[in-house]
Amino acid sequence: MSKVKRVYTFGDKKAEGNAGMKNLLGGKGANLAEMNLTGVPVPPGFTITTDVCTEYNEMGREKVVELLKEDVKAAIENVEKIMGSEFGSRENPCLLSVRSGARVSMPGMMDTVLNLGMNDDAVVGLTNKTGNARFAWDSYRRFVQMYGDVVMGLKPESKEDVDPFEEIIEALKEERGIENDTELTVDDLKLLVTRFKKAVKDKTGLDFPADPWEQLWGSICAVFDSWMNERAKYYRQINRIPEEWGTAVNVQAMVFGNMGKKSGTGVAFTRDAATGENIFNGEYLIDAQGEDVVAGVRTPQQITHEGSLRWAKLAGISEEERASKYPSLEEVMPEVYKELFTIQKKLEDHYGDMQDLEFTIQDGKLWLLQTRNGKRTGAAMVKIAVDLLREGKIDEKTALLRQEPNKLDELLHPVFDTKALKSAVVIGKGLPASPGAATGQIVFFADEANKYPASILVRIETSPEDLEGMNIARGILTARGGMTSHAAVVARGMGKCCVSGAGNISINYKTRTMKAGDKTLKEGDWISLNGTTGEVYESKIATIEPQMSGDFAGIMKLAEKYTRMDVRTNADTPKDAQTARKFGAKGIGLTRTEHMFFEGERIKAMREMILSGKEEDRRKALEKLLPYQREDFEGILEAMEGYGVTIRLLDPPLHEFVPHEEENQAEMAKEMGITTEQVKAIVDSLHEFNPMLGHRGCRLGNTYPEITEMQARAIIEAACNLKKKGIDAKPEIMVPLIGTVEEFRLQNQIIRKVAEQVFTEKNIRVDYLVGTMIEIPRACLTADKIAEEAEFFSFGTNDLTQMTFGYSRDDAGKFLPVYIKKGLLKEDPFQVLDQEGVGQLVKMGTARGRSANKNLKVGICGEHGGEPASVEFCNSVGMDYVSCSPFRVPIARLAAAQANIR
Amino acid sequence: MSKVKRVYTFGDKKAEGNAGMKNLLGGKGANLAEMNLTGVPVPPGFTITTDVCTEYNEMGREKVVELLKEDVKAAIENVEKIMGSEFGSRENPCLLSVRSGARVSMPGMMDTVLNLGMNDDAVVGLTNKTGNARFAWDSYRRFVQMYGDVVMGLKPESKEDVDPFEEIIEALKEERGIENDTELTVDDLKLLVTRFKKAVKDKTGLDFPADPWEQLWGSICAVFDSWMNERAKYYRQINRIPEEWGTAVNVQAMVFGNMGKKSGTGVAFTRDAATGENIFNGEYLIDAQGEDVVAGVRTPQQITHEGSLRWAKLAGISEEERASKYPSLEEVMPEVYKELFTIQKKLEDHYGDMQDLEFTIQDGKLWLLQTRNGKRTGAAMVKIAVDLLREGKIDEKTALLRQEPNKLDELLHPVFDTKALKSAVVIGKGLPASPGAATGQIVFFADEANKYPASILVRIETSPEDLEGMNIARGILTARGGMTSHAAVVARGMGKCCVSGAGNISINYKTRTMKAGDKTLKEGDWISLNGTTGEVYESKIATIEPQMSGDFAGIMKLAEKYTRMDVRTNADTPKDAQTARKFGAKGIGLTRTEHMFFEGERIKAMREMILSGKEEDRRKALEKLLPYQREDFEGILEAMEGYGVTIRLLDPPLHEFVPHEEENQAEMAKEMGITTEQVKAIVDSLHEFNPMLGHRGCRLGNTYPEITEMQARAIIEAACNLKKKGIDAKPEIMVPLIGTVEEFRLQNQIIRKVAEQVFTEKNIRVDYLVGTMIEIPRACLTADKIAEEAEFFSFGTNDLTQMTFGYSRDDAGKFLPVYIKKGLLKEDPFQVLDQEGVGQLVKMGTARGRSANKNLKVGICGEHGGEPASVEFCNSVGMDYVSCSPFRVPIARLAAAQANIR
Repeated sequence: MSKVKRVYTFGDKKAEGNAGMKNLLGGKGANLAEMNLTGVPVPPGFTITTDVCTEYNEMGREKVVELLKEDVKAAIENVEKIMGSEFGSRENPCLLSVRSGARVSMPGMMDTVLNLGMNDDAVVGLTNKTGNARFAWDSYRRFVQMYGDVVMGLKPESKEDVDPFEEIIEALKEERGIENDTELTVDDLKLLVTRFKKAVKDKTGLDFPADPWEQLWGSICAVFDSWMNERAKYYRQINRIPEEWGTAVNVQAMVFGNMGKKSGTGVAFTRDAATGENIFNGEYLIDAQGEDVVAGVRTPQQITHEGSLRWAKLAGISEEERASKYPSLEEVMPEVYKELFTIQKKLEDHYGDMQDLEFTIQDGKLWLLQTRNGKRTGAAMVKIAVDLLREGKIDEKTALLRQEPNKLDELLHPVFDTKALKSAVVIGKGLPASPGAATGQIVFFADEANKYPASILVRIETSPEDLEGMNIARGILTARGGMTSHAAVVARGMGKCCVSGAGNISINYKTRTMKAGDKTLKEGDWISLNGTTGEVYESKIATIEPQMSGDFAGIMKLAEKYTRMDVRTNADTPKDAQTARKFGAKGIGLTRTEHMFFEGERIKAMREMILSGKEEDRRKALEKLLPYQREDFEGILEAMEGYGVTIRLLDPPLHEFVPHEEENQAEMAKEMGITTEQVKAIVDSLHEFNPMLGHRGCRLGNTYPEITEMQARAIIEAACNLKKKGIDAKPEIMVPLIGTVEEFRLQNQIIRKVAEQVFTEKNIRVDYLVGTMIEIPRACLTADKIAEEAEFFSFGTNDLTQMTFGYSRDDAGKFLPVYIKKGLLKEDPFQVLDQEGVGQLVKMGTARGRSANKNLKVGICGEHGGEPASVEFCNSVGMDYVSCSPFRVPIARLAAAQANIR
Repeated sequence: MSKVKRVYTFGDKKAEGNAGMKNLLGGKGANLAEMNLTGVPVPPGFTITTDVCTEYNEMGREKVVELLKEDVKAAIENVEKIMGSEFGSRENPCLLSVRSGARVSMPGMMDTVLNLGMNDDAVVGLTNKTGNARFAWDSYRRFVQMYGDVVMGLKPESKEDVDPFEEIIEALKEERGIENDTELTVDDLKLLVTRFKKAVKDKTGLDFPADPWEQLWGSICAVFDSWMNERAKYYRQINRIPEEWGTAVNVQAMVFGNMGKKSGTGVAFTRDAATGENIFNGEYLIDAQGEDVVAGVRTPQQITHEGSLRWAKLAGISEEERASKYPSLEEVMPEVYKELFTIQKKLEDHYGDMQDLEFTIQDGKLWLLQTRNGKRTGAAMVKIAVDLLREGKIDEKTALLRQEPNKLDELLHPVFDTKALKSAVVIGKGLPASPGAATGQIVFFADEANKYPASILVRIETSPEDLEGMNIARGILTARGGMTSHAAVVARGMGKCCVSGAGNISINYKTRTMKAGDKTLKEGDWISLNGTTGEVYESKIATIEPQMSGDFAGIMKLAEKYTRMDVRTNADTPKDAQTARKFGAKGIGLTRTEHMFFEGERIKAMREMILSGKEEDRRKALEKLLPYQREDFEGILEAMEGYGVTIRLLDPPLHEFVPHEEENQAEMAKEMGITTEQVKAIVDSLHEFNPMLGHRGCRLGNTYPEITEMQARAIIEAACNLKKKGIDAKPEIMVPLIGTVEEFRLQNQIIRKVAEQVFTEKNIRVDYLVGTMIEIPRACLTADKIAEEAEFFSFGTNDLTQMTFGYSRDDAGKFLPVYIKKGLLKEDPFQVLDQEGVGQLVKMGTARGRSANKNLKVGICGEHGGEPASVEFCNSVGMDYVSCSPFRVPIARLAAAQANIR
């Protein structure tokens, strides 16, 4: 009928889709198809494409249901045929799951409905078929609850609100005088179904639908709706997922892990998602449905025997207790385990990457529910790629492209100083859910994560609502939940340190305290987490900088091989320069000279210079500053020996240097032999309405050429002194805030004149460049003219973004978050270079500059120089280098290599 | 020898150049050539081209002299032949003048040397030839003085310094006990020459050159040097004359107006330079050299009899006194007058424009020294062009192109209120040197003109050093000097009100007082000048707005005929709108709504809105503002009935509206029932580091949509109400500060939704447009996207200039003047649109906008919309309209017509 194919079926080792169709079928849908094609046992079903999600948002529910109707009917018939059951039947009911599935995984973000097709008829059928009334009615109860939540809108809006269904359960448990859900009888469950339906009717005025088809359409549409819910939107924002992608809907025959002792469910990873080690691992629960594992309500058991032993050791559980209460799947169902092991191997080989599997065992039969590339920590990302490369399963380029540059950040975060650790007091231990070290002040509620500059979120367990707070906190500690709990999975995805399931910790949300053994800590107290060992420490612990070695170094070496652009660093001190060099920086893209003016005597001389009314007096003060500057430059040029060092001349408005407090003003007045009133008057006269657009940058050097003269002299003298010592210094003098070629020409003349003077005085010459920062729109527009005079351009994309957008970075906090929330901006343009607007100017500036001066060296020194997408853009524009802060250097190097490969 | 022709000769009704060669020969040189070709008696000579000036600045003196040597020698021989005299000869000496002459006249700016060739031999020759030893020695004395000043550097640097030559003269007069120069004997003059030469030797260590050739080269080079003197640079700056143009040098045989009673010199205008009336007029002096007339040292006499009578009446001089002491040339030398009258007619006809002539009568023979298009007031400019058009001497396009748009400004300045004038006290009367009305506080020194916001510069006479101060003062009053004195000529050029030669006024610079009859006024006292009548009034006088009528209206009608672009106005009130309409505005290009929030109750409601933490409270406060806004919009839409009215939504940061003083904060706190501390805290939270780039413009409307809703409602309701009254209101709603299409889309949706609501409520529809201000660089770069949604663009070139240059207009005062002085910027980009940089964005924005939406209406509403060069640019870009302040509307209309003709 319709020419567009909207529904793709799979089952019984056949499938209409395949792994290559992720954009259309979503990650989950494509993999379900592919798993079938690989010959893995997967419950049959079908996928509604992501395009339909877009149609849904555009055309609305009714039209889309109409468009889908026939295809879905046919697909259900196919499921029924394969499963030998019938949708909504009293005899042999076929139950379905309905799940979302976008191109990339968004764990816990969108809605799912399980046990669909359940009604008063089907429950009878299921009872008869399984001989397990309790299971059947519990499934019914779960379905009504889930459908009521997701489709009929009874889900509480925030965590403070009570879930009406949980309230009903609690009430009944009280009536019955019991504590656990498992103590509820079949009749209790029947009563719950009745009460649940009444609650729905009371709240919505609608009858709970008995018709399986109505249930099906309700669930499909609810999944589409959930693409636009607030949580999902926020997740897309921080993960930069476009709204247009949409989600697919996967409808699949239910298989049950909660059909008794021979059933179970679990998740598994083909390699260790935290460390990257090639160890099959995972967790499962007997007699449970999938969400029980992920939600962290029950403590899950390990799949492998080895893993189980290790886990028990970490959790401090005796072998006796482990073997009796938490045996591994390998021990409990050795046949199933063997099949699972074979399948995981097959799937990893098939996909050529570490897989994250979901499986269910129904009455002894293994079903694979999902496989996907597993989320992993930065360390695991590096190790897995290097291992797969070594194993010959992927090539070098693939290994490089598998790296998510930002994730390297985790490897560059501080780790605890081993010395400091020795005196640290361990107050608890949990699972090493996401590695790294974190120190911060305790908060108990995710929406209070920003209460302290560094906070640790402490929760019994986390849920998707906590996402925003988890992103803000430095680390996450949970009392319950395993390695695959929500907290663990999300934290690993964020590269955030996490210790989960720390059993000795009990949390009291009301009093905002936690007990760890005999210690009681309250909100605001400092704790530290080691996500690599699972240890929880009392108070702050000092950290040290990480090293770049092992597999990390290997990946970096590989990046070097495939890169075209150099990566430089922004560094103001020899120490920073050394750090960056260690990380592979090839030169300095930006040295700010202004920080050098603040220490001790320097600031006095600087102030004297600014407060002087006459050039003569300014020159005297500058004389005092000269030796300091020269010394600073010697240090930094020496640290970067052999590589170019771009030194920016004085940039900030003079106002930033003068004393604003009366006391300091009086001191300066005394120093200079003038009155405090005079000092105050000069300070006041320096006030600016918009200092960002005021008397700064080369405007200072052009109105007070003596400043430029002093700085140029300090740089050239430093280089000459080093050369005499046999050190190869390569200064590149950068004039900031150029808007017209005339401004540059004047500065260039001053600098070159001073350089010649110094060469004559010292009887030695050094090579140096004079170039400019391109950070004003007008400079991009007239770049051809400027390039006739300048030897290099360095794009200052921070200021360029400020002026191109008309956003003051200091003030944009008032509207940028709202803008991003409302979708007026996809991303913060100060974090990710705005290629559409600012990028045009960068492109234009580069092209026009090169057209006038084909030897023009072009780079970027704004903070975008360390942001992968922006680095890729810089590569495409043809820049010679990017420059970023020392700890972003490896990230930029990787991004530069990836950009070049792509 | 050299292929480039550097020297152009003229004389005896032959010339190598002509009037078309102004760029090469300068205005004066081209006209000297042309006058020869026209058959007018002109002293022979030659012109060294303006290109040589550039060569001089590049290659230096020696090389240029070398290049010129042969050609100059030949040219001198030509002069000698025509004059029958010999350069430096003891028998029949040929004396020369050396004068500057740029493309456009720069009166008094550069140096001149007269009587060149004079030495101990030539003075004998001249004595013998003329039989007038006094004249010969006075010429010698003058030459040494002038050459010493100009070439040898004895000119005092500022007016405070004493001229060493004047000092010598004063000393000698004291020795002799005489008062006037004329009482000096021939021997005295000889003594002066000796003493002058000694002064030169003492000061410079150099002998005064006797060799005429050395004198000649010294003078030629001095003229080239004077192109780069500070006065000339400043003049070029305010008159926007490029430095590259250079000056030509005109060397010409001297003729003498100071050879006795049958000699004289004068300047004349073919029409009245102040009023434009077709009356031949001018001034002369008997037995004088040219500079005596211009310098205003002696009171000059009128050329025509009629003029003389009129002058005497104005100056309060009896007919007896006039006829004896100040007879006209017409009376004194009727034959010469007749010849002069014929020549002036011939020259005006030849050039087709009002001429400014310089002539000398040497021993009864008339010589024309110069003719050029005469400087004139705005009124004269209009009248002369309209008259010439009427007389059939020029066509319509020429008449239009003859108008200097900025000069119309004079016609739009206030004139005295005739009622207020009745009670005004006249304290003096001078010549109506430059028309208009001025009221201000007295200053006596040009460099103190900025001492008061409105100052009147009162001087005995002015000189070129006073230029900067004259430009700042509101009006100029001199005690000495005629209609062609320095003060008068310069003031007319500037369109500045000037009364010159007010004889009853005596000025004491030392006590900083002036006496006018029996009144004594001191610095800072208010006076008023009527430059149209020559009257000087005590104290302030109220002024009224001018009318556009007569010839002015005629020129405007002509402009209308040849224009393509519309001219709109920027107006915030019905009164402004009416004024602009009177001046021919076709619509409003910018109505700022923020001013409307400041009056009375409004500011309270506005503050309440801002200080409210909740949307609900903001809405309540906005409700209160709605009726005010609606009323304002009704007024302005009605005033512009039939034309589009662009209303800009709220633009400035909210900070501008809140109370900053504790008292007002307390009042608001009381009003709103919160504490003063709360108010203070909110006010503080609104503080921004760079408000220009902060939370303003559409960023307000997008974060607080309720503001946009209220404003849109007020506008649409106003238009609906007017339509019901039969008034054709055409609102165009303008969203400010758009940087992304998403921002515009959201605002557009809000506005259109509100409009539909109002239409439904009022059961009537009106046409309206929704567009945006293009004032952020990013908007220009993404104009194609924005134009898909917007119906019009209005370039806000004030902000666009701020962001493209990175200049805060409020702060740029710290460096812009230095930048202009140093030549880093040719002009203030806030006054004249920077076509090279900002212009690219305007062009790009227009082209890209139109490429996406061919019906896009495009205009400009920045202040550049009233600046002629910028208007021409807007025309070239293809804009539909420019918009400017009401009083700039005629200027913009004229500029628009001229742009279209060109």
